[in-house]
Amino acid sequence: MTDVHPVCVRFHAAIELIGTRWTGAVLRALFTGQHRYAQIKAAIPGVSDTMLAQRLRALQEQELVERRVLSTTPVQVEYHLTQRGLELEPVLESIITWAHKWIPLPEEDPAAGVPAPAPTRS
Amino acid sequence: MTDVHPVCVRFHAAIELIGTRWTGAVLRALFTGQHRYAQIKAAIPGVSDTMLAQRLRALQEQELVERRVLSTTPVQVEYHLTQRGLELEPVLESIITWAHKWIPLPEEDPAAGVPAPAPTRS
Repeated sequence: MTDVHPVCVRFHAAIELIGTRWTGAVLRALFTGQHRYAQIKAAIPGVSDTMLAQRLRALQEQELVERRVLSTTPVQVEYHLTQRGLELEPVLESIITWAHKWIPLPEEDPAAGVPAPAPTRS
Repeated sequence: MTDVHPVCVRFHAAIELIGTRWTGAVLRALFTGQHRYAQIKAAIPGVSDTMLAQRLRALQEQELVERRVLSTTPVQVEYHLTQRGLELEPVLESIITWAHKWIPLPEEDPAAGVPAPAPTRS
């Protein structure tokens, strides 16, 4: 077994970073143009405030997301993908392509896993 | 906020399926040609037998991996990606591309997260 090549630690860190529960959904909401907390929350049925706040904080620490405070009255806060986050687009697109082929719609498989809102095709 | 489009439940299920701890590393080991249990384990420094056995079982239940019993003496068991699993290749490739640009090597960032073996670049 001297020819076994270890799995790249950077790949391993990356796949578990984006696959952490709720993280992928938050990233996708940002990619589809939701930038305010309430919009992001509305785009992710089932996410709690505690979890969403925690995930947004973690994504900022990982430098995938930046928090912008707009000098409006009252001030508004927006979350935007950084360059590091934006470059995940091909990853998310390839997952969407695979999921639309291989993951059944909730009606077809009620045991599919993720808490299911009304189904959506994109 | 009537224009908020919910995140696709199939995308959400898919990204958390592949991002479950150790799952991405097991898939990657299979893609790089490791098929026997001991080879897969050797390719994933830090994984325990309990965890690896559990992940291989889950991947079979998810129909991403099939277990083949070879009629040799003694019998040998191999794990292979199914068509459903093989079609994750573009997903893994896009994650590798992103990780090699955006995830530092362990020496550069000892707090990167995943238990680190000797670094590898592929």
